[in-house]
Amino acid sequence: MAPQPDLPEPAHPEVDSMLSRKFGREVANYFSGSPLNRVSFLRGNHEFISKALTHPTTSFLLFNNLSPLAKDNTTLAYATHAEVKPLIGENPFAKTEEQMIKDYNSAVTLPLVLFLGLDERKKGGFQHGIYSGSPYFAVDVTPRGTVVKEANGVIEAMKAKGLQFIESRMHMTLNAPEAAIYAQARALIDWNARNPFCAGCGQPTLSVNAGTKRVCPPTDYASLPTPQGAITVLDTPRERAACATRTGISNLCFPRTDPTVIMAVVSHDGQRVLLGRSKRWPANWYSTLAGFCEPAESVEEAVRREVWEESGVLLGRVVIHSTQPWPYPANLMIGAIGQALPDGEEIHLEHDPELEDAKWVGIDEIKTALRIGTSGLGDPPGPEYIEGGLRLPPKTAVANQLLQAVVGGFLETPKI
Amino acid sequence: MAPQPDLPEPAHPEVDSMLSRKFGREVANYFSGSPLNRVSFLRGNHEFISKALTHPTTSFLLFNNLSPLAKDNTTLAYATHAEVKPLIGENPFAKTEEQMIKDYNSAVTLPLVLFLGLDERKKGGFQHGIYSGSPYFAVDVTPRGTVVKEANGVIEAMKAKGLQFIESRMHMTLNAPEAAIYAQARALIDWNARNPFCAGCGQPTLSVNAGTKRVCPPTDYASLPTPQGAITVLDTPRERAACATRTGISNLCFPRTDPTVIMAVVSHDGQRVLLGRSKRWPANWYSTLAGFCEPAESVEEAVRREVWEESGVLLGRVVIHSTQPWPYPANLMIGAIGQALPDGEEIHLEHDPELEDAKWVGIDEIKTALRIGTSGLGDPPGPEYIEGGLRLPPKTAVANQLLQAVVGGFLETPKI
Repeated sequence: MAPQPDLPEPAHPEVDSMLSRKFGREVANYFSGSPLNRVSFLRGNHEFISKALTHPTTSFLLFNNLSPLAKDNTTLAYATHAEVKPLIGENPFAKTEEQMIKDYNSAVTLPLVLFLGLDERKKGGFQHGIYSGSPYFAVDVTPRGTVVKEANGVIEAMKAKGLQFIESRMHMTLNAPEAAIYAQARALIDWNARNPFCAGCGQPTLSVNAGTKRVCPPTDYASLPTPQGAITVLDTPRERAACATRTGISNLCFPRTDPTVIMAVVSHDGQRVLLGRSKRWPANWYSTLAGFCEPAESVEEAVRREVWEESGVLLGRVVIHSTQPWPYPANLMIGAIGQALPDGEEIHLEHDPELEDAKWVGIDEIKTALRIGTSGLGDPPGPEYIEGGLRLPPKTAVANQLLQAVVGGFLETPKI
Repeated sequence: MAPQPDLPEPAHPEVDSMLSRKFGREVANYFSGSPLNRVSFLRGNHEFISKALTHPTTSFLLFNNLSPLAKDNTTLAYATHAEVKPLIGENPFAKTEEQMIKDYNSAVTLPLVLFLGLDERKKGGFQHGIYSGSPYFAVDVTPRGTVVKEANGVIEAMKAKGLQFIESRMHMTLNAPEAAIYAQARALIDWNARNPFCAGCGQPTLSVNAGTKRVCPPTDYASLPTPQGAITVLDTPRERAACATRTGISNLCFPRTDPTVIMAVVSHDGQRVLLGRSKRWPANWYSTLAGFCEPAESVEEAVRREVWEESGVLLGRVVIHSTQPWPYPANLMIGAIGQALPDGEEIHLEHDPELEDAKWVGIDEIKTALRIGTSGLGDPPGPEYIEGGLRLPPKTAVANQLLQAVVGGFLETPKI
């Protein structure tokens, strides 16, 4: 069985909390619980960012084709400013954002340098006004455009140190705090890499705000291509076509996060749970149902719609339990618990034939499977697993946490 | 005071529900509670969509520059198939999606025709297999591209009937079921209109799946522009540049929804609530704090980060209360209640200077303001309002519902 790392600790002490007394302890899901303070309001402050970039305590997490630099499958590795300088230059934040936009040249590749935040557990080093802690950045070292040679140089230097870019798609073996750092960096590097053009006007865009915004500059020092595709650098920048994203605030300039619902559905009497499986999954492996929120739908409505579309089951009350960032590529998993209506428990798989099977499973069988049958999708179950028994997702998945809540008494009415 | 319409009814009966007994009745927020079944899995079935489009019970909601057709501020108006035919043609779904992609010609404007769902309250008319109810579509009649004349013709015909395209940005006077229909249509028409190009490659895209997906076709019957900007129609389509969105599933092809947190923050003893105000708001008008979820952040973390960044207050336990679709342009408001840490209640506005003021307000003052001081942002408060008193958002805003929950005993511990 692959290692199942611990979940992050909730980010706060459980101090005599009225909400904890009523609703129980907060569940902090895997990929959440980052030790970094993002100090998001300082990203546009190039004096701060420049100082943080070049501080001796600063760590650079490198990604090559979305694979992070690591010591092994549980621990990330970081580069220093000196090690990334051959690719990113001394300080890509030396100019103001306004000047970067004025100097925009779409023919030049600017490697993405992303500010992640300050690790406030490490006081006493970097300080900026009232803010202190070790700065964290991520750098996309994927060889592309005009910096292929420089990027390959950084990659080779890291490999020469015995480090590796770990290639598993789901890095769910990382220790919990670094899983959250990795998730933040992966989500934003991927967003920048998959959105090089403006969806409003089709022209290339420029990453600003320390990697968290893409703007559509009004001018460009690169010429339009000739019919043969040649591009030249102009002495004075050309005006580009008009774009709606340049007036007011447009969501197109900001990272995208796709809200997703995932739900443990209990029968009306609370004694059974609805599970489903995709035909691509290993034998006996089931999970909770899930799907994307649609535009202009509440989470509660999305839960009821997805459950009906995938299983035919009709839900009454829906309660949101906890949420999990899911950086593949940009999902926010919103975990809920829903209760079937008394006459709505019949399973019908033919509306949206996405599931190979859906079935009601008794609470005791779920309890057993949570104890001996959990694993990552590609991993074998634990040693106590008995062949043919129910298999379920690992505790790093919110699906597992929802099932634990259901078997742990989440549904029980307080005796008032 | 502007009318404050009713909230939607929760979509299900409160039948002896374990979850309702424990967590209370579900709050259905304004813009949710649509009477339509989206039958999302049928959108790609052009036999179904064609039949629904031309059925005599079908309603077409028209939008001109995002303003919906309406009888007045509370009630939408709908066109018939015969009335939209001059713009959209007899049936834009006559070809398969595959054929539409093969025939793609970026020089021709295809008006957006969006399938919204079936109103299952109206049985006995339209029927397709086991699915029945009156079909609803939305059509974007904004005059643009090659259909300016036809679009203006439809607009003038509607105005001649005494109908109007209502231009208020926030249509919060619409009756609750139609507010949800409007929200779905507005969100998707806006998404299509603001994303005419592929963010992956910069080339124009084609709307498919009855208005809910945009694909990047591999070929185009329109030529590339000449240096003078002229485009000609080709006899055989040209190959377009490669695009990553054509392999596998890319989120760039699907509508975007931006998850947003909004939170009622209570003091550690539960006796006061943190409110903030923007300098653009009318005097004495306050609301709960709010902000966007960032990539790879749980909702609970986003709530704590935003509250700290905007007010300096430190939160312990956070519980999600209810959610609200907010189609301006594409937000999902996730409403939460958070409790301050005992030593975290000091207000500090200088981290992210977004608020003009933030303050702790006693429960009794909130109760009074919920009774006599609520209104839409641009509207006067009710007749009982006393000048200088606290003003709050109307019951159609999730902020109001969160405050109602707090003063209504949400925090109280069950006596077990």
